[in-house]
Amino acid sequence: VVILDLDPAVGHEHVGIQLRHLLATFEPTLIMEAHDGLSARVAADAGFRALWASGLCMSTTLGLRDSDEASWTERLTLVARIVEAANLPVLVDGDSGYGNFSTARRFALQAEQIGAAGICIEDKRFPKTNSFVGDNHELAPVGEFCGKIRACRDAARNPAFVVVARTEALIANLGIDEALLRSEAYRLAGADAIFIHSRKPTVEEIVAFMTDWGDRLPVLIAPTTYPQTPMSMYADLGIAGVIWANQGMRAAVKAMRTVCRLLSTEGAGAVEGMIASLDDVFTLMDYAQLTLDEQRYGS
Amino acid sequence: VVILDLDPAVGHEHVGIQLRHLLATFEPTLIMEAHDGLSARVAADAGFRALWASGLCMSTTLGLRDSDEASWTERLTLVARIVEAANLPVLVDGDSGYGNFSTARRFALQAEQIGAAGICIEDKRFPKTNSFVGDNHELAPVGEFCGKIRACRDAARNPAFVVVARTEALIANLGIDEALLRSEAYRLAGADAIFIHSRKPTVEEIVAFMTDWGDRLPVLIAPTTYPQTPMSMYADLGIAGVIWANQGMRAAVKAMRTVCRLLSTEGAGAVEGMIASLDDVFTLMDYAQLTLDEQRYGS
Amino acid sequence: VVILDLDPAVGHEHVGIQLRHLLATFEPTLIMEAHDGLSARVAADAGFRALWASGLCMSTTLGLRDSDEASWTERLTLVARIVEAANLPVLVDGDSGYGNFSTARRFALQAEQIGAAGICIEDKRFPKTNSFVGDNHELAPVGEFCGKIRACRDAARNPAFVVVARTEALIANLGIDEALLRSEAYRLAGADAIFIHSRKPTVEEIVAFMTDWGDRLPVLIAPTTYPQTPMSMYADLGIAGVIWANQGMRAAVKAMRTVCRLLSTEGAGAVEGMIASLDDVFTLMDYAQLTLDEQRYGS
Amino acid sequence: VVILDLDPAVGHEHVGIQLRHLLATFEPTLIMEAHDGLSARVAADAGFRALWASGLCMSTTLGLRDSDEASWTERLTLVARIVEAANLPVLVDGDSGYGNFSTARRFALQAEQIGAAGICIEDKRFPKTNSFVGDNHELAPVGEFCGKIRACRDAARNPAFVVVARTEALIANLGIDEALLRSEAYRLAGADAIFIHSRKPTVEEIVAFMTDWGDRLPVLIAPTTYPQTPMSMYADLGIAGVIWANQGMRAAVKAMRTVCRLLSTEGAGAVEGMIASLDDVFTLMDYAQLTLDEQRYGS
Repeated sequence: VVILDLDPAVGHEHVGIQLRHLLATFEPTLIMEAHDGLSARVAADAGFRALWASGLCMSTTLGLRDSDEASWTERLTLVARIVEAANLPVLVDGDSGYGNFSTARRFALQAEQIGAAGICIEDKRFPKTNSFVGDNHELAPVGEFCGKIRACRDAARNPAFVVVARTEALIANLGIDEALLRSEAYRLAGADAIFIHSRKPTVEEIVAFMTDWGDRLPVLIAPTTYPQTPMSMYADLGIAGVIWANQGMRAAVKAMRTVCRLLSTEGAGAVEGMIASLDDVFTLMDYAQLTLDEQRYGS
Repeated sequence: VVILDLDPAVGHEHVGIQLRHLLATFEPTLIMEAHDGLSARVAADAGFRALWASGLCMSTTLGLRDSDEASWTERLTLVARIVEAANLPVLVDGDSGYGNFSTARRFALQAEQIGAAGICIEDKRFPKTNSFVGDNHELAPVGEFCGKIRACRDAARNPAFVVVARTEALIANLGIDEALLRSEAYRLAGADAIFIHSRKPTVEEIVAFMTDWGDRLPVLIAPTTYPQTPMSMYADLGIAGVIWANQGMRAAVKAMRTVCRLLSTEGAGAVEGMIASLDDVFTLMDYAQLTLDEQRYGS
Repeated sequence: VVILDLDPAVGHEHVGIQLRHLLATFEPTLIMEAHDGLSARVAADAGFRALWASGLCMSTTLGLRDSDEASWTERLTLVARIVEAANLPVLVDGDSGYGNFSTARRFALQAEQIGAAGICIEDKRFPKTNSFVGDNHELAPVGEFCGKIRACRDAARNPAFVVVARTEALIANLGIDEALLRSEAYRLAGADAIFIHSRKPTVEEIVAFMTDWGDRLPVLIAPTTYPQTPMSMYADLGIAGVIWANQGMRAAVKAMRTVCRLLSTEGAGAVEGMIASLDDVFTLMDYAQLTLDEQRYGS
Repeated sequence: VVILDLDPAVGHEHVGIQLRHLLATFEPTLIMEAHDGLSARVAADAGFRALWASGLCMSTTLGLRDSDEASWTERLTLVARIVEAANLPVLVDGDSGYGNFSTARRFALQAEQIGAAGICIEDKRFPKTNSFVGDNHELAPVGEFCGKIRACRDAARNPAFVVVARTEALIANLGIDEALLRSEAYRLAGADAIFIHSRKPTVEEIVAFMTDWGDRLPVLIAPTTYPQTPMSMYADLGIAGVIWANQGMRAAVKAMRTVCRLLSTEGAGAVEGMIASLDDVFTLMDYAQLTLDEQRYGS
């Protein structure tokens, strides 16, 4: 599991290069979700080397449903915070690209401009529904989606900027063969990596996909519904990146709910043991550096 | 403790009226911090009737220090999410007003425009330092701060919009008398309520303040450093509002750190018990309503 | 032509009410396009009583094409400036609603939150093409568009918020009958007014439409391609609102181009006669008031 | 006058490098103001090779006064449009840095992140007043302002990012010697160029400054109040950059006012000769490219 042992010098390269290196390592890179500056900082502090700006988590942070209720600008405003707070390569969840090749392209260009390492777009229609909700997950025609990939790929100012194609063929119950056909089409259209999404309770679909796919392109997965899979399995399968796609947000939800309940009934004394100290927060945000800076730059 | 028993019909009034009613009740109103749409929704779901858009928590969410590193627009972008997600009166922490009477006034006008119930400004100089950090908390001259209050008060489009004056006299170690003098000056300048801030480990300073202040204006406090005080004490003192100013954010920090550590070492199986289920998240964000709406409005 | 003679007291009502009054007057109300705070202030200063936040002009101001290249948030950020700068009812061009009923609804809710008087959505597919560009203007099914209207209508917090339905039937060359059928369907779905768009060089299509439509709902037009029509014609036809949809932006383009050319070849002396003086700008933005405010609120 | 004859290959370098090259040429580089995507595109189309994101013009576009009424985020949102629309190096007017070294630094970092070539900060106190308004232009202490320069200089991710120090010593009537002393202090603090501002009706102050300053650092000027100076004079003086700081906005104001007046009294026929055609606008924004892209990427 590649979290701690990478060459720190990688930090001086373009973030797209950094992300490409991370996806090219022998073992799967763990990619932690982030949905704002704080979650990004926490993830960086825990040693993660790359972040997933999750559509579900950013929507939830905004107080919205993951059904394209948020505009892409609302999303990218959060991405800018993630990039600034973490100083890590950030892969941005771009849903289905917000309309057509033109909206997808502008989304990609803006993501690159604010410092993201890459974007991921999926082959569902716009507006999409979250992959874990219901059975209404119609896919876009392959050719239409390939146009989006090519438009994003051609538009990137820096060739290192990463364009990931995510297929929802398994979410739409279209089977492994469709997933493979689509992934190959997206590879030929210029995708730099494939995100194969499954919502089965076990890793079986991923195994089936990887057996046939091999190493044509790096593959990303998000084991949300099959969390019990041992990590060694992903290395054996040749997975390039394992995305922990929403666990941080879900931990925050549970913790905030508990604290709200106690604060509304018993008061602040009841929650002291379950919250970070203010000093922890100040350390995480490096308030000490500001004090040093005041001595250096202040009047 | 006023959380559950208010007239639901209050919801049809202007948010400023709602907040004024809540501050006029016999028992202290509990006001929960929120720093994004999600924390606002969680707080509303837990029964809180008013929210505090906390400067510390919003700064931390942005990945920044609570030293006016965030622009007021970055803050208000979060406030807009809080307002939309919670449908509750929101009191917005406006630090020291971002400069002079003119910046404070525009901040207030914009907060009102996006649906906040009121703002709170404090009598520190700009840029400020968080009240729990260090001993460099110089106050602005009384006259200068009164000018900010009057400018905000006069500018509000709706007279119900609430302007709270927060004195940092105790944070600056200037003593109870200075706190009282300043609070009285701010009352005369048009403040609708006083926020008296203390960072002592017990409630003693608040007691001393309230003994002399009486009921000249509603008083708000934030028991961050004196959390063990029994809630009944606040009712006895005649406190109008008790702000839980940062506990939700601190709970999220602790939970996300724990989950990040486990995800980077053991994998997703290790965190299942400590995170909200996806269904919980979907219920909190009311995905079921969208399904109903699709039947009603969809094609 | 209703520009100058309305009751100034109208200003104290909800902007939606103000706009409804303006559309209910005997003579057509002239509605000037605005695309930022400055153009809004200029229009208000010239006596216009209502503004059209034009999609074409806002896109152009952003440096983008009017093909949904801008996100709705980028558009609404401009609308917020227009509302703040003009203190007039603003009708917001919402294109085809950015996707489905759900995106249209959130767009409407956000427009209302920042103080717009209403929105206008059109029955083209998303992403749309500007009505004056090419012949690829496919319309959405009537039922689908009615769902958007109903969703926006039901969602508005204030019942006075205006929802205008714009039909592009004539732009799509579908004929007057289709325009009438669609307009009637939109009326039944809850639209508060109809915007009938034509790109013919004369007013003939509008005349044909109005002859049959009568006064079922107030009708708005934008005489961009038929500017020579005498104003009295619109009154005779019973038009409720005449939108000058892009002339301000186009005047700015021409003037800035001329000045740029001269500045790059001859220097600033050559342009003095064709630019507003700094004092004009300061008067337009009311710098004198700030000086007075400094005396009142400053330290 | 360097507008047309530079090596086009310069476009592949970092924008900071491009701006440095432009300031190092033998003849003064003309730098055109821009305040949104449209004005940036017009300036680029006219052949300018660098842009000045003017504080006065951006404030005016927002409908606000140039007295720090706009937040820095509102300004940078416009800068992002300018950068995207023009594909030219953009120097961003950062007023006095929005507070202290810390706010100035974050402003600089964000400007760099969104693709600006550099920032310019001035040595007035915050909030500032526009240099052409009144006589209340108090300067910050030299040491305090040098701290801001060093903080911005040290924070830039790319060493090519340009930090310009603007002295308002002449605006504050402190004399040439003070302007020279301050400029030298700012040079030693790390400024990459000096902006010497004068509001005299002739170029005399600039001549006096340059005579003593020589070529210690490139010097920028904004001949707003002394527009009649022949361009050859600036070359003779060794000026590096001549900023046309507000003429585009002022041209737009005059043109929009004229058009508004005619539209409110005579109708659209009266303005046809004084506005750009729609085709002109579509050419300027390159709608033809989108049509080609649809053939390439569309479905």
